[in-house]
Amino acid sequence: MNEQPLLADERIDDLLTYNLKIIQSREVFSFSMDAVLLARFASIPKRGKVIDLCTGNGVIPILLSTRTHASIEGVEIQERLADMAMRSVTMNGLEEQVKIRVQDLKDMPLVGEREAYDAVTVNPPYAPVTGSDMKLNIHHAMARHEIGCTLEDVIRTSAKLLRNGGKLSMVHRPHRLADIIILMRQYGVEPKRIRFVHPRQHMEANMVLIEGLRGGKPEMRMLPPLIVYDEQEQYTTDLKAVYYGLKESL
Amino acid sequence: MNEQPLLADERIDDLLTYNLKIIQSREVFSFSMDAVLLARFASIPKRGKVIDLCTGNGVIPILLSTRTHASIEGVEIQERLADMAMRSVTMNGLEEQVKIRVQDLKDMPLVGEREAYDAVTVNPPYAPVTGSDMKLNIHHAMARHEIGCTLEDVIRTSAKLLRNGGKLSMVHRPHRLADIIILMRQYGVEPKRIRFVHPRQHMEANMVLIEGLRGGKPEMRMLPPLIVYDEQEQYTTDLKAVYYGLKESL
Repeated sequence: MNEQPLLADERIDDLLTYNLKIIQSREVFSFSMDAVLLARFASIPKRGKVIDLCTGNGVIPILLSTRTHASIEGVEIQERLADMAMRSVTMNGLEEQVKIRVQDLKDMPLVGEREAYDAVTVNPPYAPVTGSDMKLNIHHAMARHEIGCTLEDVIRTSAKLLRNGGKLSMVHRPHRLADIIILMRQYGVEPKRIRFVHPRQHMEANMVLIEGLRGGKPEMRMLPPLIVYDEQEQYTTDLKAVYYGLKESL
Repeated sequence: MNEQPLLADERIDDLLTYNLKIIQSREVFSFSMDAVLLARFASIPKRGKVIDLCTGNGVIPILLSTRTHASIEGVEIQERLADMAMRSVTMNGLEEQVKIRVQDLKDMPLVGEREAYDAVTVNPPYAPVTGSDMKLNIHHAMARHEIGCTLEDVIRTSAKLLRNGGKLSMVHRPHRLADIIILMRQYGVEPKRIRFVHPRQHMEANMVLIEGLRGGKPEMRMLPPLIVYDEQEQYTTDLKAVYYGLKESL
């Protein structure tokens, strides 16, 4: 592990996978289970180019590095979070594979087919802009509310970045599913694969993992439900298998 | 039970609910689990007007009669099937509540708000028109393939029939989910409630129950998954509770 300077509010957490560590901060940004499940769910090519939008403290690029030799970029609009992400990348010795940059995804240019990406991942802010985001500090507000980008910005930008046949994988709240599906098709990314996450077997889903194929034909698959807790309030075997997922074949 | 004449290929089956019986025929039409699950899933008003499109042998109107005092119409394009449905309605003594008629749903006129329906249910043909429907007799072919109506015909007609605030409940195959959601919103029936049916806990869904609200606001709920078989290859407790569902409060 390459030591990195920490700011006052920061701590180092264990990603519980391949000895990976990550810099977090309760005041600024901590990753959630959503990001980990997306990093497992996304179809990622063995080589090529992958980009993670709304990357936060870089948890998704760092986790994806265990699954692929592809180059991985992470894009974050907040300098403070991108700086944490860069230090975490260096801490894990991943500087060659993972590049973090500060950029507003709304400004990303259309890329030519040769420069296009094979896969886009994104864990965007879920909540609409309401009064409640005013109570949060700017870092939390931007990570949770559609202040810096809307769902449509995210899907439009992803479609621009992807090569034909490339894949967009996203995690979001199920109540936005209709909007997600309608926008994906509108921007030419056909929804192909969905997995719902339910806190318990008999509860409604509170998370949806969805993957679309740039230029794909309509035909969806609905994966088995992923249940988080069993009746003893422990993580289910399925959840543990995904969460602490073993390295996939490289 | 009011005795009804049976044709040579017909038999009487028990609906396993409230002593209801139904006339079926292997050669012409037998209902499937899909129809039963839809009849349980659909939100049905206690009074008012309900209509079931693609009603086949009338299984859905007959099952719905246990849940409501509303008048229930069943619409079927095939005379042979509508005739079976009418005899089943009479056999169960439901002639006052349930009316079956032969009609092409594509010909149904726009109804005024006062004549509009509170709920539409539909278990439409799932499969596109392909070569394979040529191997079936016309009754099976029309029940399974989009020969008499397409998914868009079904959703457009349902939207025309519903009052503002009325509900469309449909059962279909998950691989068409994107099309269903996009068409529902296009015709002003906002998708609100979804339940996926998985044959087993760790298998992909093979059925989707979906309900939309005419004039509703975007906001979806994803119900707990419904699993059909347990590890002993028996119906799960959940499935039995739905399938043999107790009479709901009237």
